[in-house]
Amino acid sequence: MRVRKKAWTEAEYVNNPHLVHNPREFKGRWNEVFGNDKPIYAEIGCGKGRFISQSAAANESINFVGVERQSTIVATAARNVGEAQNVRLIHGDVENLLEFFAPGEIKRLYINFCDPWPKKKWYKRRLTYRAFLEKYKELFGGEGEIFFKTDNTVLFEFSLNEFCADGWNLSNISLDLHKSDFEGNIMTEYEEKFSSKGFPIYRLEARWKNS
Amino acid sequence: MRVRKKAWTEAEYVNNPHLVHNPREFKGRWNEVFGNDKPIYAEIGCGKGRFISQSAAANESINFVGVERQSTIVATAARNVGEAQNVRLIHGDVENLLEFFAPGEIKRLYINFCDPWPKKKWYKRRLTYRAFLEKYKELFGGEGEIFFKTDNTVLFEFSLNEFCADGWNLSNISLDLHKSDFEGNIMTEYEEKFSSKGFPIYRLEARWKNS
Repeated sequence: MRVRKKAWTEAEYVNNPHLVHNPREFKGRWNEVFGNDKPIYAEIGCGKGRFISQSAAANESINFVGVERQSTIVATAARNVGEAQNVRLIHGDVENLLEFFAPGEIKRLYINFCDPWPKKKWYKRRLTYRAFLEKYKELFGGEGEIFFKTDNTVLFEFSLNEFCADGWNLSNISLDLHKSDFEGNIMTEYEEKFSSKGFPIYRLEARWKNS
Repeated sequence: MRVRKKAWTEAEYVNNPHLVHNPREFKGRWNEVFGNDKPIYAEIGCGKGRFISQSAAANESINFVGVERQSTIVATAARNVGEAQNVRLIHGDVENLLEFFAPGEIKRLYINFCDPWPKKKWYKRRLTYRAFLEKYKELFGGEGEIFFKTDNTVLFEFSLNEFCADGWNLSNISLDLHKSDFEGNIMTEYEEKFSSKGFPIYRLEARWKNS
């Protein structure tokens, strides 16, 4: 998606205290950034920050880091985060996760409505492709969990198969989240728009623990 | 479903050589029934026998046993099996599997379009409820696989969660089988009727191996 630069985003990007401009410096020391030892959850592709803001507000005992690769969007997210003390944002990419965080520093990853890369030949770019799953295992350093949502049937089917083939333990699998009993769902901007048209949202939780 | 008794079904039920009337007698000795030591696959709820007939024709190195709890339908299945040497049919119920077969005697179970028991309070009757999964493990005697198909979203979601919670290894998960790359699918009567209306068919393979 081409993103139009708005006048205020540049200043926001530079000055907003939620934005961590030198994330590599804090690898292994994110508790210093937050000033406490609460567990840290990260969202890959946090977009405009609605999900991470609401998650942070609902879970004050957790620190949240949003990673977003478009600077204009991460600036918007920074603005939307408001006064939350337990949120930080990084302008970065999934490829850099292991540069930003030490093994075991992230306890949970959220992957919400990532690019489905729908053509079959693109499957290696999907964020649930097994090479990525191996990276996440490294990130977790032995134990961690992924909460994954998508509206894309092909991506969800692919993801189920990848997680299973890679030995993750799956639970709370939903084939139509908004009609399910699942409580406490926090919608992303995209999710609200898409589900209001009546399309189903898929969700799963995947856990990894070194044996 | 109420099944109308047709005049010929009673004779078929009594006389068709594919019907095994005393299955408990052959527990642990099904190789004698077939006269060879080929692996045995079973279908729970084989209906009118289209799936099992075509599977048997396509896999002559395998013996197939269909289990169906409605006598009129199993008689129809017996008629439909034709001359196949590698098929037998039992008038029986899933509850009796362990009376019919010795542990390890069945290598693969097919569960095709079983009753979804759609109301939540009925979940214990679904054939992929974990109490049934435990029975199937006993039936497999250490190692075996289940090939499962349904058109029911609630049942498929439930089944994914039950298999995962019970430690089975899942693969070839399809959220829209007829649009997938899966090759060699053999349709049941029900599947053809249902999918021709454009509804998706779900499928998975679940494997169990004692550790």
